[in-house]
Amino acid sequence: MSEADQHKPVIVLVRPQLGENIGKAARAMLNFGLVELRLVEPRDGWPNPSAGPAAAGADVVLDMAEVFASTAEAVADCGHVYATTVRKRGVTKPVYTPEEAAREMAGAVGRSAILFGPERSGLATEDVALARAILTVPINPDFGSLNLAQAVILCAYEWSKHENLVQPTQEDLLPPAPQDELEGLIGHLEGMLEPKGYFLPATRADATRRTLRGVLTKPGWNHLEVRTLRGVLSSLERRSKKD
Amino acid sequence: MSEADQHKPVIVLVRPQLGENIGKAARAMLNFGLVELRLVEPRDGWPNPSAGPAAAGADVVLDMAEVFASTAEAVADCGHVYATTVRKRGVTKPVYTPEEAAREMAGAVGRSAILFGPERSGLATEDVALARAILTVPINPDFGSLNLAQAVILCAYEWSKHENLVQPTQEDLLPPAPQDELEGLIGHLEGMLEPKGYFLPATRADATRRTLRGVLTKPGWNHLEVRTLRGVLSSLERRSKKD
Repeated sequence: MSEADQHKPVIVLVRPQLGENIGKAARAMLNFGLVELRLVEPRDGWPNPSAGPAAAGADVVLDMAEVFASTAEAVADCGHVYATTVRKRGVTKPVYTPEEAAREMAGAVGRSAILFGPERSGLATEDVALARAILTVPINPDFGSLNLAQAVILCAYEWSKHENLVQPTQEDLLPPAPQDELEGLIGHLEGMLEPKGYFLPATRADATRRTLRGVLTKPGWNHLEVRTLRGVLSSLERRSKKD
Repeated sequence: MSEADQHKPVIVLVRPQLGENIGKAARAMLNFGLVELRLVEPRDGWPNPSAGPAAAGADVVLDMAEVFASTAEAVADCGHVYATTVRKRGVTKPVYTPEEAAREMAGAVGRSAILFGPERSGLATEDVALARAILTVPINPDFGSLNLAQAVILCAYEWSKHENLVQPTQEDLLPPAPQDELEGLIGHLEGMLEPKGYFLPATRADATRRTLRGVLTKPGWNHLEVRTLRGVLSSLERRSKKD
């Protein structure tokens, strides 16, 4: 990964099913200059012999593709994570068009990633929970039939429009902390809440965790802010001076 | 063709080779609301049994497709004809991006048509000559490998931005909570941190409070999110179950 490519969004295919579709996604990416592909638990393993022929020459993207065991690990170094969904499902995250997301990514400090779900089912709720925003292609309400590579190409195409524009730098603004720092914060707080019975009843625990994650993901806190909050939590864990 | 569809651009495939690609083009079109497909001398005749399966349900487009013996006849009723080319070849016509062409078509009086050439060779010079303008997708100069359906979908997608397709709405998003609710949250947390010595030394207390306030103000949490966080704080104040 050259330094010049660091500002380009990472394309993350979560549990992709067909190798052919991975190849087509790579081809779609490279047409518009995107080169970094990450695969989360590809169904048929990796490398996949069906990917190459479908990539139509975009082998460099496939050769550099990295495999991850979880979506969280795949976006650990990314501060701006977008989850593509076909329709909104009662989500309380901002919803962007590819155009809006591309504009934001082009001006962003720190790495961006776009998550695409498995061909049939789309992203799982817990994958969407990792993202700060939803990316939805506005589509014919009577015929929505975008395949994976088509969704990728529209996002890559929109992003490429900003490629030659000189972006004002936001050097005063720190980028959102990498995902693993945010995970550290969430884990810390959950560890404190667990013994207090916050996640009871157990039947509600998953939903409660998602809600909490959503509240803490929304801010896009930077490294220093996350560190401040870790300090707050550590302080709260201490016994009071007067205890 | 309903009257409402008259303002939509016609997609003209000139001497398309594979039925499968005609089906894919139809699918790409219908995703973004385009319905009128015209075929000029399709190599394998028409109808083509390979087209249907590739259309993934966009049969209405295939069923209505019309066949013409020449490009000139296919665009005879169109006032605005765009010829897609991968690269411009010494042409002396205006060259538009899909975005620019879509903007022009959206405001145009009279019918518009976009010409796409055969898969391998692209449009012939005499086809391009029929067009008022060239439409070129700005693409990675080191890897230009857009297939027919991809070129169609990018044009259809850009055109659809000017239609009133379902836009992602953000109606589910609540506004930031009123300031007094945020103050309540900040006060609650400060009250918990005070006895832990978080604001010591006293000379740093003001700066520390400002930092904390900044971190909690940045998110723009809504009413429900603030209430969730108040619940988190109350929970942390409780004695552990095991205490």
